[in-house]
Amino acid sequence: MAATVIKKESSKQLLAALPELVAQLLAAEEEEPCPPYQGAEELTRLFDLSVPECGLDHSDLIELLRKVILATPRTATPAFVNQLYGGRLWPATLAEMLTAMLNNSMYTFKVAGLQILIEEQVIAEMLRLAGLTRGEGIFCPGGSISNLVAMLAARHFALPEARENGLHPSAPLRVYASDQAHYSITKNAGILGYGRHNVRLIPTDENGRMNTDLLAAAVAEDRRNGCFPVLVVATAGTTVLGAFDPIPEILEITQRFGLWLHVDAALGGGFLFHPEHRGRLAGVEAADSVTWNPHKMLGVPLSASVVLFARKGTLAENLSEAADYLFQEDDADLNPGLRSIQCGRRNDALKVWAAMQYLGKEGLCRRVELQLALARFAALEISKDPAFELAVPPASVTVCFRLRGADSPALAHALNEQGLAKISWASFRGQTFLRLACVNPDMTEEDLRALLRNVKYAGERQQNAH
Amino acid sequence: MAATVIKKESSKQLLAALPELVAQLLAAEEEEPCPPYQGAEELTRLFDLSVPECGLDHSDLIELLRKVILATPRTATPAFVNQLYGGRLWPATLAEMLTAMLNNSMYTFKVAGLQILIEEQVIAEMLRLAGLTRGEGIFCPGGSISNLVAMLAARHFALPEARENGLHPSAPLRVYASDQAHYSITKNAGILGYGRHNVRLIPTDENGRMNTDLLAAAVAEDRRNGCFPVLVVATAGTTVLGAFDPIPEILEITQRFGLWLHVDAALGGGFLFHPEHRGRLAGVEAADSVTWNPHKMLGVPLSASVVLFARKGTLAENLSEAADYLFQEDDADLNPGLRSIQCGRRNDALKVWAAMQYLGKEGLCRRVELQLALARFAALEISKDPAFELAVPPASVTVCFRLRGADSPALAHALNEQGLAKISWASFRGQTFLRLACVNPDMTEEDLRALLRNVKYAGERQQNAH
Repeated sequence: MAATVIKKESSKQLLAALPELVAQLLAAEEEEPCPPYQGAEELTRLFDLSVPECGLDHSDLIELLRKVILATPRTATPAFVNQLYGGRLWPATLAEMLTAMLNNSMYTFKVAGLQILIEEQVIAEMLRLAGLTRGEGIFCPGGSISNLVAMLAARHFALPEARENGLHPSAPLRVYASDQAHYSITKNAGILGYGRHNVRLIPTDENGRMNTDLLAAAVAEDRRNGCFPVLVVATAGTTVLGAFDPIPEILEITQRFGLWLHVDAALGGGFLFHPEHRGRLAGVEAADSVTWNPHKMLGVPLSASVVLFARKGTLAENLSEAADYLFQEDDADLNPGLRSIQCGRRNDALKVWAAMQYLGKEGLCRRVELQLALARFAALEISKDPAFELAVPPASVTVCFRLRGADSPALAHALNEQGLAKISWASFRGQTFLRLACVNPDMTEEDLRALLRNVKYAGERQQNAH
Repeated sequence: MAATVIKKESSKQLLAALPELVAQLLAAEEEEPCPPYQGAEELTRLFDLSVPECGLDHSDLIELLRKVILATPRTATPAFVNQLYGGRLWPATLAEMLTAMLNNSMYTFKVAGLQILIEEQVIAEMLRLAGLTRGEGIFCPGGSISNLVAMLAARHFALPEARENGLHPSAPLRVYASDQAHYSITKNAGILGYGRHNVRLIPTDENGRMNTDLLAAAVAEDRRNGCFPVLVVATAGTTVLGAFDPIPEILEITQRFGLWLHVDAALGGGFLFHPEHRGRLAGVEAADSVTWNPHKMLGVPLSASVVLFARKGTLAENLSEAADYLFQEDDADLNPGLRSIQCGRRNDALKVWAAMQYLGKEGLCRRVELQLALARFAALEISKDPAFELAVPPASVTVCFRLRGADSPALAHALNEQGLAKISWASFRGQTFLRLACVNPDMTEEDLRALLRNVKYAGERQQNAH
């Protein structure tokens, strides 16, 4: 039986294995950026994952972990363009590893100390960039939860009695978002009691931006019909097209009707680092709440998501509970547990802060330029090649395109299966296409060319197979 | 300006710094398990945390991170008994560091592959141990969110229309939990539209266990008054006393009235690893949902929390959304994003799985014994010493006691300030006392003796100061 109390010697051996495991993973990533797909059945044959009766000794554990990490899909290579995150920002990865060593829970200053100040500093910087100078914010475990907290605050703004007495609105509530908004808006509406059917998905223009005339008409219509419009979600950087809803025009409507404005900038928040490109989010400074995920464009390890509010006090109004056993030292300001939807909360701030320290304001800005340049380059290569077709001009960092004559879902599947690339497909206005995410600034133009060659290669193989 | 595209050389230098940073932190933990308290003002003087214009080069970043980790409260030492987590389980810490390298988002098999099977395996094992043999589960970011998802499912069970059409119950909903239940129950009631006032906190007996006669009376009374009782939360391992509500008696009531039974075993779930001590949770196999946090008694880094359901399909009913751009390959079974309250989701499963592999079933069981033995030993030392007074006999792994003549909150504060220990205080039935958490099985009896000596020492200093 393995010792339960792990002795220092054994812990040293485990830790000593880390550099070699990491080196081997890096070598494997270099050699095989996207290993051929292994299905669940195959992996189940290869790995006995069940809990053993007696524990493994450290060398067996290290060998097992080695096999596991080498058989895990690689998200840091240029062949991974499947999601709105990717690559590896080393200072952030290092900080995340140190976070595992420190293991502070971010509820109180007593337990997390300096890490609380680091979170505060990161949030202060994000508030400053968003122009919410009197606001507050908190790290949440992902953009869906950030959106949830924002939609909760909007509900509280409309129905301040609900938190204490329960939700029983006299009229159906209404939430508005574009038909390109993230699916968490609908999901959260189900959770928070708005009801999924009470989310009106407003049509978008040919570039995927919300049609604000239709928004205004929908709100007015709902008012006439006795419904209770509560909030509008503007998306800054949609999931598929990377499009930006026109915040100023939406703002005019939310102000006219007295609605809460939430800006879901989970993706697009990254543009706030850039003095020019931040213009895409003009108007965000008048929003009531903003979601912004540094794990997307900033490239820190999952997850790092922040919800920001225009007005200090919003989080505590919605989330604070008295808990003597926990919140017993220091100012409330230093105990963010009073403002979080979580209780125990891992430290997602250190990695963001480390990234900001390493890049500096200049580097943060340059990173955005590189991401945009990659998307522009990919779009240019695609338009130059008659085998391809751009689906829409790229609005920011995603490039949507088709290989003529090919079925995009089948093509994405084949690329994955053959170990050529992980890339997703998506649909917009009846068109289905490949969606290439250019969020990893370490990708090169050559990487993009190779990726496009692989798309063509897989397409040819597919045609020949028919 | 630091390069934005971080070159391989630089990344190697950053990574090469990790072993030395870790070694230095370990040495510091050994030398000074609880450094003297530094307040926010002092830390603000010592650290310029602001984002620089130009990025730091890697050696400056490493130096800064070194200072930061050394100035962060230490949670892995025997002087940290403040929370229901603590210590360091090395195989899990190693796995968490590899998780940062792999950076898979746990929504789809395409992106997370083998890690999805690992999460499945861990959940299957937890379901088996809880006796929920036909159930399902998912990792959530902390126990509060696990409880939230369970309370959402309970709401859906009572009011299946609410997800689509919005919550507008015809009668006030009611939630029942003991007055020792975790504060997330009340908080979640506010979020989910039950209303905080609609949570009835049922009194507990002298050992902190729910009085089930009063529970039955409360439910019957609410029924008579036209309220709508929905769910009962039984706590398996309360936050302060570590007490276990009597699940079989609660079950009798939930079955009689047709209510949902949620067992919050965030702490106490750990006992399921032990063939005898698992009896404390007898009846859990008939619960509708269970919260269980491996980051507590299992000692893996924050956060690792799982919510389990008795019936497969519960999660999707409450949380699934169609999202073509994301869920486009493989069986729904292999895409847990369809069953999560999150979208992007970090991998909290690998560290739990690594811990299970390293400890084996025997080691998991032995760990529980060690934790209980530490609590028993501390209680014995306390009862032998006339300077101390046990507040209640320890129900599991927390030991609540007082130093006679001392004010416990002031004493806890002094211990923290003087760098002697991080220990919390709590109250129960008008008594206020110190709460010593025995969840770190690497603590020795000598560590506990030293801790108690430090409590007396700080108490004497305090008396002399008056």
